[in-house]
Amino acid sequence: MIRVTVWNEGLHEKVSKEVAAVYPKGIHGAIADMLGTQEDIEVRTATLRQWKNGLTDEVLENTDVLIWWGHMAHGMVSDKTVERVCKRVLRGMGFIALHSAHFSKPFKKLMGTSCSLQWREQDDHERLWVVNPAHPIAQGLPPFIEIPNVEMYGERFDIPEPQELVFLGWFSGGEVFRSGCTWQRGNGKVFYFQPGHESFPIYHMPEVQKILTNAVRWAAPLQIFPEATAPNAKVPPESVYQK
Amino acid sequence: MIRVTVWNEGLHEKVSKEVAAVYPKGIHGAIADMLGTQEDIEVRTATLRQWKNGLTDEVLENTDVLIWWGHMAHGMVSDKTVERVCKRVLRGMGFIALHSAHFSKPFKKLMGTSCSLQWREQDDHERLWVVNPAHPIAQGLPPFIEIPNVEMYGERFDIPEPQELVFLGWFSGGEVFRSGCTWQRGNGKVFYFQPGHESFPIYHMPEVQKILTNAVRWAAPLQIFPEATAPNAKVPPESVYQK
Amino acid sequence: MIRVTVWNEGLHEKVSKEVAAVYPKGIHGAIADMLGTQEDIEVRTATLRQWKNGLTDEVLENTDVLIWWGHMAHGMVSDKTVERVCKRVLRGMGFIALHSAHFSKPFKKLMGTSCSLQWREQDDHERLWVVNPAHPIAQGLPPFIEIPNVEMYGERFDIPEPQELVFLGWFSGGEVFRSGCTWQRGNGKVFYFQPGHESFPIYHMPEVQKILTNAVRWAAPLQIFPEATAPNAKVPPESVYQK
Amino acid sequence: MIRVTVWNEGLHEKVSKEVAAVYPKGIHGAIADMLGTQEDIEVRTATLRQWKNGLTDEVLENTDVLIWWGHMAHGMVSDKTVERVCKRVLRGMGFIALHSAHFSKPFKKLMGTSCSLQWREQDDHERLWVVNPAHPIAQGLPPFIEIPNVEMYGERFDIPEPQELVFLGWFSGGEVFRSGCTWQRGNGKVFYFQPGHESFPIYHMPEVQKILTNAVRWAAPLQIFPEATAPNAKVPPESVYQK
Repeated sequence: MIRVTVWNEGLHEKVSKEVAAVYPKGIHGAIADMLGTQEDIEVRTATLRQWKNGLTDEVLENTDVLIWWGHMAHGMVSDKTVERVCKRVLRGMGFIALHSAHFSKPFKKLMGTSCSLQWREQDDHERLWVVNPAHPIAQGLPPFIEIPNVEMYGERFDIPEPQELVFLGWFSGGEVFRSGCTWQRGNGKVFYFQPGHESFPIYHMPEVQKILTNAVRWAAPLQIFPEATAPNAKVPPESVYQK
Repeated sequence: MIRVTVWNEGLHEKVSKEVAAVYPKGIHGAIADMLGTQEDIEVRTATLRQWKNGLTDEVLENTDVLIWWGHMAHGMVSDKTVERVCKRVLRGMGFIALHSAHFSKPFKKLMGTSCSLQWREQDDHERLWVVNPAHPIAQGLPPFIEIPNVEMYGERFDIPEPQELVFLGWFSGGEVFRSGCTWQRGNGKVFYFQPGHESFPIYHMPEVQKILTNAVRWAAPLQIFPEATAPNAKVPPESVYQK
Repeated sequence: MIRVTVWNEGLHEKVSKEVAAVYPKGIHGAIADMLGTQEDIEVRTATLRQWKNGLTDEVLENTDVLIWWGHMAHGMVSDKTVERVCKRVLRGMGFIALHSAHFSKPFKKLMGTSCSLQWREQDDHERLWVVNPAHPIAQGLPPFIEIPNVEMYGERFDIPEPQELVFLGWFSGGEVFRSGCTWQRGNGKVFYFQPGHESFPIYHMPEVQKILTNAVRWAAPLQIFPEATAPNAKVPPESVYQK
Repeated sequence: MIRVTVWNEGLHEKVSKEVAAVYPKGIHGAIADMLGTQEDIEVRTATLRQWKNGLTDEVLENTDVLIWWGHMAHGMVSDKTVERVCKRVLRGMGFIALHSAHFSKPFKKLMGTSCSLQWREQDDHERLWVVNPAHPIAQGLPPFIEIPNVEMYGERFDIPEPQELVFLGWFSGGEVFRSGCTWQRGNGKVFYFQPGHESFPIYHMPEVQKILTNAVRWAAPLQIFPEATAPNAKVPPESVYQK
């Protein structure tokens, strides 16, 4: 059983009727409901205004994959929460950053770069191309997906060279984007996925739900490791090596 | 002094008046003339119908960077020529594959994949985006270049994950492409560059000429190594290691 | 069910009593027997002197992961066999190259490099270090494994930069080696594993058997793709993109 | 002219006679003196107890490559200094982390991992193997270098998969280490180099000095970029793309 926590600020759907109309339970609620239909996945949600941003040690110890949505309140996430999240990733927890989570504190900390990009909210549409069809995250997808209304995110995306590039985005305004990228950090797998917006129903699209479900299974750790310490290594007494 | 050899089949401009109108001396001639204006670059050309496809041991021994254009006669390049070229790359020679050279024998041999892609000859245009502006090949370029008439090359491009992705192409027909990619093979650097076509004047564009010049300087080896043999290593007599 | 074919020249154990004493059924037989104990794995073997080197289209069509051992007769494998094997890898089949298979024709073709290294047959021993403990191939292993008698393989190993480095080898004679490396080629996963020798009982070690079993599960494709052709892409009639 | 700043805590050589005997002017002084002999390199030093840890905006604006040594006082470097250093790296400044700087704040921030490893101070020696002889940092080196007295640093080294692995270390106690690794972060190049210790004269070895000089030239930026902002991209008025 893969234990997933879907994190959201939990603000957009409260301050905007437009957002609430698309995602009445918030984006976290929509994704949790969708993932919860899978037999091998167990879901909970967590939000910014909960105790310790909803991500206590106890919650994280019981999370295999953390999905992160954030947009308007990145700065309100406490640095201690970020520290806890990243330590858990290094021990093996998967981390999936959605859309505007490119600027979330944990994603930036894991990448080590500015994670900057160019953007535009207008009536753009996107063609999301699969460039690595054999990748587990791309299983069951056609060569490309059309996303009718989307916030444009364009290059240059300031990220470390991805270990695997899974999706490339084509935008009607003339831009391109590395829309699906993977990295390993410590023992944890990280996936960034660009499509998504608080007021477009992108997470209701079956193909996008397929991608998120695939990503959860891909990011789930085979094991969680103890925190890395820098051990002082003794040469074993039986060693034949040391002079 | 960087010694460049520009290879071309040397056929298109002879069989097509349209091609000859754009590149009277062939694409190899146009690129050679352009590179020859640089003080640190020395250029020669070579073509398919010359002795040993123009790439004798003597020519290769005096080549630091080989630029390869091929389109209609990939199969006519002899396997022995391919062997000589690839061995020289492994020893340190840079190799720049242009456009349809994605299907050339040496490029496929260096990649180990099918190098397949989708394509269309129509009135597409391309926006070539710089995704790694710090890369030597992208020096002096704006964030993107417009290429008005171009043969569309689209994903999925079946190549090994590039070590560095420098350019991404956006096409008006809705496609994207990893249009500028680098790899190392043995001691040699390899660059694939998608723009270019036998009857569009793309290699006359100043920005494209800038890219090719940058690529030559980037791909030039610091040294040429002897061919790798698999040596039987003796433990040095003075070794303290071996029991 | 993962369908594995273990390939071997099938010569060593026939010409050498020493080899036959360690691997009475050949290395292929020993590995097949071991893998065959797993419930999710189905094994067959194939050898050089069989029809089409034992790797007919029919056999390959029914192989998910091909394990390759070769040492003394690399050159006797027909180029057509190599072509069939590599095409199948590009379509999704996993490929695991063992020890001296670094110089096998299919591995060299997939890598595009010389795959040269330095070597020594003497009473070396190796410490095989896990450098990526979260990798599926390293599951269940201690930080390092001791291999008492081994043929030394040392750097420089002329391979493309691995996508993932899983194991590093330390040798008593003073050498190091990238002993476990992964790459993707087309839709197929490739794993190279250095330990192993025709007359040392390395493939009888439980830890090495664990690694091979892990590697089979890691390399097994999620799907087999059709062969890549370079399709002429029409702009779909309903396209909104093309002028 | 490449402008190098060599940073050190500046403490070891003041508190330990043993260290002061090896590096009377500190490790920073020794490296600065050595690099200063090169015609294309201009060097300054900076230390922890200077105003803003010696790394003011003005100093950083005039630094092309920052070399970082730290061992006993990582935690005393102010977070604002770390912020300034990393921002400058993202804009293009090269960053070379020496030995125990694996645990320095800027290196950990750039990597996004724990950077943990195992270690031992004893009479180990190291053989430093060149695994990528064509790399600019390895120019002019033999296949391996012997370092007689060294602090052992062993795997697992918790770093992101290096983009290029240049050196591998072999230790007499039975360990291995990825002793020379490169990454790109933003527009800046990062190099980690393991050999070095405050009381062993490793930075006086001609081969190590060669490596450091090579690394400075490799890490020097072709240009310094403005800080990445996330621009709201307008579709250019003349655009043919947007509906």
